Amino acid sequence: MEKIDGIIKKTTVDYDDFAKFDGEIVKVSGYIHRIREMTGFSFVILRTERDLIQCVYAPEFSDYRWDSSLSEEACVTVTGKVVSSQDSAGNLRYELQIHDVKILSLPAEPLPIVINKKQLDNISLNTILDLRPVAMRNPKERAVFKIQEGIARGFREFLNNNGFTEIRTPKINFAGAEGGTNVFKLDYFGKQVFLAQSPQLYKQALVGVFGRVFEIAPVFRAEHHDTSRHLNEYISMDLEMGFINGFEDIMNMETGALKYIMNLLKTDYAKEVALLKADIPEITEIPTLKFMDAKKIIMEKFHYTPSDMKDFDPQEEEMLGKYAKKELNSDFIFITHYPSKKRPFYTMDDPEDKEYTLSFDLLFRGLEITSGGQRIHDYNAQVEKMKNCGMKPELFDTYLMFHKYGAPPHGGLGIGLERLTMHLLGFKNVREATMFPRDINRVTP
Amino acid sequence: MEKIDGIIKKTTVDYDDFAKFDGEIVKVSGYIHRIREMTGFSFVILRTERDLIQCVYAPEFSDYRWDSSLSEEACVTVTGKVVSSQDSAGNLRYELQIHDVKILSLPAEPLPIVINKKQLDNISLNTILDLRPVAMRNPKERAVFKIQEGIARGFREFLNNNGFTEIRTPKINFAGAEGGTNVFKLDYFGKQVFLAQSPQLYKQALVGVFGRVFEIAPVFRAEHHDTSRHLNEYISMDLEMGFINGFEDIMNMETGALKYIMNLLKTDYAKEVALLKADIPEITEIPTLKFMDAKKIIMEKFHYTPSDMKDFDPQEEEMLGKYAKKELNSDFIFITHYPSKKRPFYTMDDPEDKEYTLSFDLLFRGLEITSGGQRIHDYNAQVEKMKNCGMKPELFDTYLMFHKYGAPPHGGLGIGLERLTMHLLGFKNVREATMFPRDINRVTP
Repeated sequence: MEKIDGIIKKTTVDYDDFAKFDGEIVKVSGYIHRIREMTGFSFVILRTERDLIQCVYAPEFSDYRWDSSLSEEACVTVTGKVVSSQDSAGNLRYELQIHDVKILSLPAEPLPIVINKKQLDNISLNTILDLRPVAMRNPKERAVFKIQEGIARGFREFLNNNGFTEIRTPKINFAGAEGGTNVFKLDYFGKQVFLAQSPQLYKQALVGVFGRVFEIAPVFRAEHHDTSRHLNEYISMDLEMGFINGFEDIMNMETGALKYIMNLLKTDYAKEVALLKADIPEITEIPTLKFMDAKKIIMEKFHYTPSDMKDFDPQEEEMLGKYAKKELNSDFIFITHYPSKKRPFYTMDDPEDKEYTLSFDLLFRGLEITSGGQRIHDYNAQVEKMKNCGMKPELFDTYLMFHKYGAPPHGGLGIGLERLTMHLLGFKNVREATMFPRDINRVTP
Repeated sequence: MEKIDGIIKKTTVDYDDFAKFDGEIVKVSGYIHRIREMTGFSFVILRTERDLIQCVYAPEFSDYRWDSSLSEEACVTVTGKVVSSQDSAGNLRYELQIHDVKILSLPAEPLPIVINKKQLDNISLNTILDLRPVAMRNPKERAVFKIQEGIARGFREFLNNNGFTEIRTPKINFAGAEGGTNVFKLDYFGKQVFLAQSPQLYKQALVGVFGRVFEIAPVFRAEHHDTSRHLNEYISMDLEMGFINGFEDIMNMETGALKYIMNLLKTDYAKEVALLKADIPEITEIPTLKFMDAKKIIMEKFHYTPSDMKDFDPQEEEMLGKYAKKELNSDFIFITHYPSKKRPFYTMDDPEDKEYTLSFDLLFRGLEITSGGQRIHDYNAQVEKMKNCGMKPELFDTYLMFHKYGAPPHGGLGIGLERLTMHLLGFKNVREATMFPRDINRVTP
């Protein structure tokens, strides 16, 4: 009887370990990314999990003779000798002199687009999205989603290190979380149910259990918009934190998380950051500005007349981004104390001025990437606010259990993962930072 | 202007740090879990994020006088002196002599169930589920979901350490992943779409991009069953791995992951393991048994007549669990080479006997917790198998992009997070290990 011991024995070598094997024979598996035939030899670029490795085929290296069935996108294991050389900057780089190529699989057809150039040139975003499963084989396209992994990983690691519990709340919900109309409906064994548009009500209830919680999971919004910054399904990074002294604690936790994330990207994702020439922000501290003071700056410094005084339009966000960068030397700025009328029913009003709330948005280079704030924890206050918002508290009895049976002062926030990835990488369309976007026109692949 | 520096300053102390503050005055925030009035003093048990802390109120400790509005489930910050004593086993334990209690919030009503006993006694599972947001305030109930966090965290950390990329695939799908009928349908801007019943097709495609991928995310199955081990929404821990030498590589990766998970539970989750008296398995190696040999054992050793020779019923799984424990001294056993007819269309047949497949299930203490195996990577082979299964390959063109344009030998597996948690903790019903279960009868809270 065979037994499986779970000890992972690697039979192939990563590029990062080539330095240890300089002059030695190693095996590397991957896709043939590109073949360039020269006089008397060929360059074969092997695409491995995170690298492109230059291999050289020449008859004098071994008895192996090139197999003409080998094409780009063939999967192979190359055996070869690691050889080092200095590049023009004096750095050591390594290539492989091919001694053998074992074919693992061959493609049935050549790729419909060229993915082995530096980037996908002259290909429309729509075509890229149609062909996403293969378009992502381009190293730059792929790097976008490694960066995205790093952002989510950083958020999680930082919160785990700070006593947060990871939760996984149901996506099939009986009531729309925020009571709105923009929810997807479905038939669930004869009942009408909804897809979660936010884990809001669950994460608050779970503050009563774990104190501090977070979730990274899909949310669904049936909004009819067709813009460059909205999706109908996206990943929301949510946190909720109990026993706070004020909503500044939430902003502080977010600032800490962003510092951690950016540092993680610069270290563990340095390859992808370099490949994408990503401008990772330095964060020391993030300035804050009250909503009405921000409006004043928009009117006085930018001579712009806001269309309303309840929220910011995209141009105003850009102006505040410019102001933060130029006058405060910061890529980020917190705007606090949004008007009560524009914030959801669970938001705590500012006791000093009930027209405003203990809430904030975070702008990153002129784009809103977070909404957050302190929530109402008192049962009677929450029931009253729901009624004032025209809601029926009796439909929310399981949500209100948390308030009724004891809730600490608490607050939280949500960050759209794809939107943050987009803006960090300087894209203009959130779909560029979404593997398989779902919007009003697209539900495939 | 206020600036936020993201430096997390803790103003309260965790129980784990009490040893450092022995004899000193500290602050602790939490829920009042229980109050026991004695003659001349009171015990107040404070429930913090992971601990119960005994506090003692007596007039001689300070000028503070007990506030009679304080009730169980009040949220408070207690200031007090850390005092150590030895328990009967000689271990140091710490309590707090109360100097002050700051009320943060008071519940509107007393709890509808008693949560401050060791466990929830004489309360039906149905009531617990109805009241889950507050029932989980019971430390044992809460510990179940900390353990669940630990399982998912261990799976992820192990795979991250082994070169896997975390992916997040869309849950709104155009075609049902496995072509089945048990999918939830919904209207998506006039189109009929489905909720993902598995990330299978996406994770395979992404092997072509990242080599090794994993996802921990909800899946949705519209099955009408009403059993103790099935849910209609659950968390699937999926991995898919390219450039494998055989499906043993997948079993090996799973064995490594399970070892890592169990070790993590014993260390970082030791409190919850102790509280639940969880029997965490020791794994050195996991035996394997071919499907037909397992059937033979069932018939010959257990004198049981299988109802069919294509799969195992729950009794047969239990017999194999007993066999593994008794004869092989293992809590786990891999069953390999399942019949082709019972495995999905993407499963690779065994080249040595096409009636069987290069697939496996993992049984843990007599319950199937994983299905996995090698997948077909050749385009023509996959198209042919789809046709043999009565499927229309043209409906799967974006899936088949992966095969057509080059796919390495690969395989993967899926583990149901709630089911593994259930069985690890010795529960009989998966709902006990599911925060907010979704089944044919339940869609709240």
